[in-house]
Amino acid sequence: MQNNQANANITANLLEQFNRSRSYTTSLIKGLTPEDCQAQSMPDASPAKWHLAHVTWFYEVMVLKPFEPNFQYWNPQFAILFNSYYNGVGDKHPRHQRGLLTRPTLTEVLHWRQNIEQRIARLLTAQASPELQWLIQLGINHEQQHQELLLTDIQHLFSNNSLLPAYSTHARPTSNNANTMEWIAGVSGLVEVGFKGDGFHFDNEAPVHPAINPVHSLSKHLVSNAQWLEFIQTGGYRDPQWWLDAGWAWIKSEQISAPLYWSSDAAERYSCFSLNGYVPIALHEPVSNISYFEADAFARWASKNLPALAGARLPTEFEWESFAREKAHLAEDLFGQVWQWTSSNYTPYPGYQPWGGIAGEYNGKFMINQMVLRGSSAYTSAGHSRLTYRNFFPTQARWQMTGLRLAKDGL
Amino acid sequence: MQNNQANANITANLLEQFNRSRSYTTSLIKGLTPEDCQAQSMPDASPAKWHLAHVTWFYEVMVLKPFEPNFQYWNPQFAILFNSYYNGVGDKHPRHQRGLLTRPTLTEVLHWRQNIEQRIARLLTAQASPELQWLIQLGINHEQQHQELLLTDIQHLFSNNSLLPAYSTHARPTSNNANTMEWIAGVSGLVEVGFKGDGFHFDNEAPVHPAINPVHSLSKHLVSNAQWLEFIQTGGYRDPQWWLDAGWAWIKSEQISAPLYWSSDAAERYSCFSLNGYVPIALHEPVSNISYFEADAFARWASKNLPALAGARLPTEFEWESFAREKAHLAEDLFGQVWQWTSSNYTPYPGYQPWGGIAGEYNGKFMINQMVLRGSSAYTSAGHSRLTYRNFFPTQARWQMTGLRLAKDGL
Amino acid sequence: MQNNQANANITANLLEQFNRSRSYTTSLIKGLTPEDCQAQSMPDASPAKWHLAHVTWFYEVMVLKPFEPNFQYWNPQFAILFNSYYNGVGDKHPRHQRGLLTRPTLTEVLHWRQNIEQRIARLLTAQASPELQWLIQLGINHEQQHQELLLTDIQHLFSNNSLLPAYSTHARPTSNNANTMEWIAGVSGLVEVGFKGDGFHFDNEAPVHPAINPVHSLSKHLVSNAQWLEFIQTGGYRDPQWWLDAGWAWIKSEQISAPLYWSSDAAERYSCFSLNGYVPIALHEPVSNISYFEADAFARWASKNLPALAGARLPTEFEWESFAREKAHLAEDLFGQVWQWTSSNYTPYPGYQPWGGIAGEYNGKFMINQMVLRGSSAYTSAGHSRLTYRNFFPTQARWQMTGLRLAKDGL
Amino acid sequence: MQNNQANANITANLLEQFNRSRSYTTSLIKGLTPEDCQAQSMPDASPAKWHLAHVTWFYEVMVLKPFEPNFQYWNPQFAILFNSYYNGVGDKHPRHQRGLLTRPTLTEVLHWRQNIEQRIARLLTAQASPELQWLIQLGINHEQQHQELLLTDIQHLFSNNSLLPAYSTHARPTSNNANTMEWIAGVSGLVEVGFKGDGFHFDNEAPVHPAINPVHSLSKHLVSNAQWLEFIQTGGYRDPQWWLDAGWAWIKSEQISAPLYWSSDAAERYSCFSLNGYVPIALHEPVSNISYFEADAFARWASKNLPALAGARLPTEFEWESFAREKAHLAEDLFGQVWQWTSSNYTPYPGYQPWGGIAGEYNGKFMINQMVLRGSSAYTSAGHSRLTYRNFFPTQARWQMTGLRLAKDGL
Repeated sequence: MQNNQANANITANLLEQFNRSRSYTTSLIKGLTPEDCQAQSMPDASPAKWHLAHVTWFYEVMVLKPFEPNFQYWNPQFAILFNSYYNGVGDKHPRHQRGLLTRPTLTEVLHWRQNIEQRIARLLTAQASPELQWLIQLGINHEQQHQELLLTDIQHLFSNNSLLPAYSTHARPTSNNANTMEWIAGVSGLVEVGFKGDGFHFDNEAPVHPAINPVHSLSKHLVSNAQWLEFIQTGGYRDPQWWLDAGWAWIKSEQISAPLYWSSDAAERYSCFSLNGYVPIALHEPVSNISYFEADAFARWASKNLPALAGARLPTEFEWESFAREKAHLAEDLFGQVWQWTSSNYTPYPGYQPWGGIAGEYNGKFMINQMVLRGSSAYTSAGHSRLTYRNFFPTQARWQMTGLRLAKDGL
Repeated sequence: MQNNQANANITANLLEQFNRSRSYTTSLIKGLTPEDCQAQSMPDASPAKWHLAHVTWFYEVMVLKPFEPNFQYWNPQFAILFNSYYNGVGDKHPRHQRGLLTRPTLTEVLHWRQNIEQRIARLLTAQASPELQWLIQLGINHEQQHQELLLTDIQHLFSNNSLLPAYSTHARPTSNNANTMEWIAGVSGLVEVGFKGDGFHFDNEAPVHPAINPVHSLSKHLVSNAQWLEFIQTGGYRDPQWWLDAGWAWIKSEQISAPLYWSSDAAERYSCFSLNGYVPIALHEPVSNISYFEADAFARWASKNLPALAGARLPTEFEWESFAREKAHLAEDLFGQVWQWTSSNYTPYPGYQPWGGIAGEYNGKFMINQMVLRGSSAYTSAGHSRLTYRNFFPTQARWQMTGLRLAKDGL
Repeated sequence: MQNNQANANITANLLEQFNRSRSYTTSLIKGLTPEDCQAQSMPDASPAKWHLAHVTWFYEVMVLKPFEPNFQYWNPQFAILFNSYYNGVGDKHPRHQRGLLTRPTLTEVLHWRQNIEQRIARLLTAQASPELQWLIQLGINHEQQHQELLLTDIQHLFSNNSLLPAYSTHARPTSNNANTMEWIAGVSGLVEVGFKGDGFHFDNEAPVHPAINPVHSLSKHLVSNAQWLEFIQTGGYRDPQWWLDAGWAWIKSEQISAPLYWSSDAAERYSCFSLNGYVPIALHEPVSNISYFEADAFARWASKNLPALAGARLPTEFEWESFAREKAHLAEDLFGQVWQWTSSNYTPYPGYQPWGGIAGEYNGKFMINQMVLRGSSAYTSAGHSRLTYRNFFPTQARWQMTGLRLAKDGL
Repeated sequence: MQNNQANANITANLLEQFNRSRSYTTSLIKGLTPEDCQAQSMPDASPAKWHLAHVTWFYEVMVLKPFEPNFQYWNPQFAILFNSYYNGVGDKHPRHQRGLLTRPTLTEVLHWRQNIEQRIARLLTAQASPELQWLIQLGINHEQQHQELLLTDIQHLFSNNSLLPAYSTHARPTSNNANTMEWIAGVSGLVEVGFKGDGFHFDNEAPVHPAINPVHSLSKHLVSNAQWLEFIQTGGYRDPQWWLDAGWAWIKSEQISAPLYWSSDAAERYSCFSLNGYVPIALHEPVSNISYFEADAFARWASKNLPALAGARLPTEFEWESFAREKAHLAEDLFGQVWQWTSSNYTPYPGYQPWGGIAGEYNGKFMINQMVLRGSSAYTSAGHSRLTYRNFFPTQARWQMTGLRLAKDGL
């Protein structure tokens, strides 16, 4: 009896989370036209319509299909069109051609969304299986990831249009990083890292395990636009000594000399293309939209050129996690500004086991040639941040809100 | 007085043509969604919205700007966004990124269209300058070219969507080519070619000049799907002896073994993707959507393998033109089915002079590494065909309605 | 009896030509090391060793195999390794990997050459068949073509070595083109073009046929380095109005701003890398190593900017041929300096028939997307030039000795 | 006095090592022709001549230039031509064009080698500075690395020649891996890793530091050809479930279905191209020339399909190192057969400091997007193996002698 009540509470709570995440996604395209939702600006990005459809596909294929009695596809071809990378589920439409799927239209996708939402709500109310509940939770977290991608992808799309449209007039919350440099002692020695407890988490955050942190410090603040400007102006992008060999080859071939959305006028005043359109660089804000190669080069340059940053390097993901766990009150902007590159490769934790079933392809097979980012960004959906959360991107990715916090050996 | 009346007639007539061509363009997107009009399936193709905008840009920049009193741009940035290749007019948006221009929206483009139409109508009524009238006529012909491209580009876009949407349920007019093979004597000796007279024509059709045709014959019919099927089934795409060296390298690297939109089932029955969706191959219809390389290889194969086609080759553009001028009554499907590849390179006629001013970039600068096609296709707009019309595409282009008519030396 | 004597004379004469051409080829590598003969600097070029081997392969496969009693390959694998493009003969080693064939060594290739030479000499003495004699003549002409390629390919290879080695200290004969501009009336009206007579010629020079030349003039001199310098210095490479659309795209993407081997110092003095190493530009010499796109752009620029060259354009190949046939005494440097780009596409003459048998692949299958050059260059082997000779290269080729002579309409 | 004697001993010993390593390098090209030493088969590989020159450049620029009185370059341009990646030292000749440096010839390079050898010997005898001695030791180790590369690069070059030349008739030592599967308990818990002591080591092996190994086992044997054959024959290369996402994309695009040098006849019997030419696969020998992607996929496949290998995965580099340090007597082929892929990314050890001066570019800047390999191969030079040695290659590299040893969690 109590059990029933508890389950009813769980269901009600989950349903509320589900509905909120679904509404939030559709709210994100309020200011967008069907055309905006159609275009794909590069192979790494996806159309907004595709994001709307793919997170719906996830519920249809991963949840309804195995759990709904008398399941039938809304349209069986959508199972191919909106699959992202689940080889186990069948054929995929080529990733770089997502912008060519003009049918189904945005309106049809929104209808499909509604249909799936109603069926999920019905199913969730009817069945109280923990497996189903977990899958819904996974679906919510999955949708949250695509909410952030939808925003970064729209920003990238709009940056390719010389009309420079603004997605929103509502500016993102800012922070103050520019004026002081302060080192805080990190947590050193044997530490325990990884997710522990009951809440939802991705398989890549487990199992909890010991790690060894050297004696080290972390910066209280994120690296700011002001500091980055100094890196640019003192020739940071022109001197190979700061760069990894592959990074140097990459900035040469791509002709990179500033963060992704920065551009300068004749007087070398920099502006930045944002979801609010072009805005002047705010010096006190954290730098964003830089690649791992740039973050790493900046640290090496700062280590040798800025006395206050002598010895600077990127933190490991475990230094970051221990710090966020035990010293969050001393630091600023651990979450909610920019994802923070770490020097850790995205690899499985000791004893890592991918989820079973089709969710098994969610994380494990991407654990190569990518670096871990910790924290979260201004675009990250509410409730999606965690101490143990591992984001990851290749070393040259720049279209995400990626910045850095420095570390150094010693105190 | 009479002059005034004549001019009024010219104006009225031109206005009527102008309005008809504008309405026809918008009628072409009746069944399309804003999404359909947004996407660009390959660098050679353009979004439908871009076509709608570009032909409007043409009137704004080429006609209103020089002739309208107190001219002002609807939006000066559109002059960059919707320029196609007129270097003299200024910067261009990269051709392969036309699908990223989600703004202006389709609705805005249609508003812009209306505004320009009204201003052109007003201007045309107010001024009777022959130069203005000629530019309007050029604008109409320019728009007609883009009407055909809009259709071929939509067909290409839809072919990339596994939902295989049909653009229309109205099938194109068919013809009957399959059953008989008949040679008709061509016009040989010294002939006069090129446009002569008063009507509108492109600069590339002039000046009229003499040419020498050998003694030759032309086929009464276009090459049919049935004949092409025989070419496929007897290994035509697998034997290098029929192919130009560059053509052979191209079909190997692109893995080409049939016309562009053909695909076969397990029983090797061919269907074809058309504006009506997938339809079985109609054997008696002319083959379409083949490259120059394929047309050339077919002729060489037919010449050696089909007794009735012994000695077959592609006609020159002057053989085709003389034939169409003097023997049109004996031939079938010179116009209105498929463009017909000729063996003539797209080069300037002796004494060719490009138009003056910004229209000078219309044709001349493309006269290299392209082949001439003659006739017109089922998608060609009414009133756009001419005996002397020179269409042109590179040797590997296949997304146009391109077929062939054979010729041979002797009678 | 007389016949026998005549045939003996033919045989003796042919043998002498054969031996001379073989010795000349080996003399070309006198100053080269085995390493120099090994490397391939780009897919268009071939290693010197490959040239030595390929012309030998030609005799072994095309002559000895069908004619020699008890024929046996020196090494059957060489038939694959040193085939260039004869699909009829079998597999080919990939063209762009010719530089990886370190075995057979240069010494082995030279032994093979000797063996084949002895067998050809024996065969030619033993058999008097006209077909055999013709094939030998073809072999000689084929080898002459590769002699010129060997030189241009070595020049290209050495240009990639910052040691800038000189192939030779013997400078090429120069000519004087700089000071005067003189137009000479061309041969207009109905003319007869193509090879006529008994001597050796390639199949692409036949059949003889009529052509119509407009009233036109040709320049007495080739375009000089001085004139080209003016084209550069007045911004010729920076203004799109002079360029074909494809040419403009090409110089932008390849960052081209001067002929292939030119480079300038800080004071904008140009030097040129030649077979004699780096030498200052000789202003009075004909410009060389330019593409068709550049030749065409120069003509358009000169037509509008140099009063003495008003109306300048490239000649057609038939204008050039008629001129060379009837007015050679009035012109300079028709042969022996640089190949001269014409505005004619490389297409089959009316009634063209490729040679029979395996020689059928010699020319015909390359007749697409290439332009005809007439005359000959300073590197062309003695005895290889002809009034009707058609050389051909794609529009962006620059590593051959290619220049231009201007024409214009009218007198 | 004693000190002097000690130093004399050090000098004598070093000189002997130096001479031995130099002689060994030249002995490696005994069977090669100048042509063989010239060619570069792909951007990752270098010509043998370049290896001979580059290791000499190292001594000239890194040792003689700073230490030799009145130093003069043998040829200052060689400092550019034979620099590999030392940006600090100046311009580099493009890596992918090393095969175009036909000058200096092999003979000249060998003369240069002799000259530098004599000067190094003289210098070493005259000066007893520890820094100089260390640089000589670095030079020897550097040359040893290139000795192995020279062999793998020649093997790759010869594999591209359909004559399939054998480099040597002397077969490499074999081992026996096929019949049994035996797990040995690894060293678990807190372990100390990295180089400790006085001998020569690379900067990437330091500093010594603690690490945590889980409870795990390592395989006594390397994975054999017999096991790999089973992987192939049961469809291992055709099933995405075993592959990392990037690995699957890579084998699809490169059409990979077996180790690099394997090829099979109609009866699916495999042969392998080796330095001895083509030889049948020896089933009991360790598999070689596989990429990280393949090693990783094999482990996942074996883990699920071979009961004796249940739970198999790749070892970490620290599992490998601890095992080799403490349990070498229980294992086979830790060294001398094939390099063994580990699951560890090539990253700096905690507190890593690159060497000072120009040697600082030796290792550090390559620490990204590469995986660590441990052990050594049959091609590794004598004296070049170490417990702490870290070799590294990108995840798709296959032209090195790379194989694998499996690990698993638990005992």
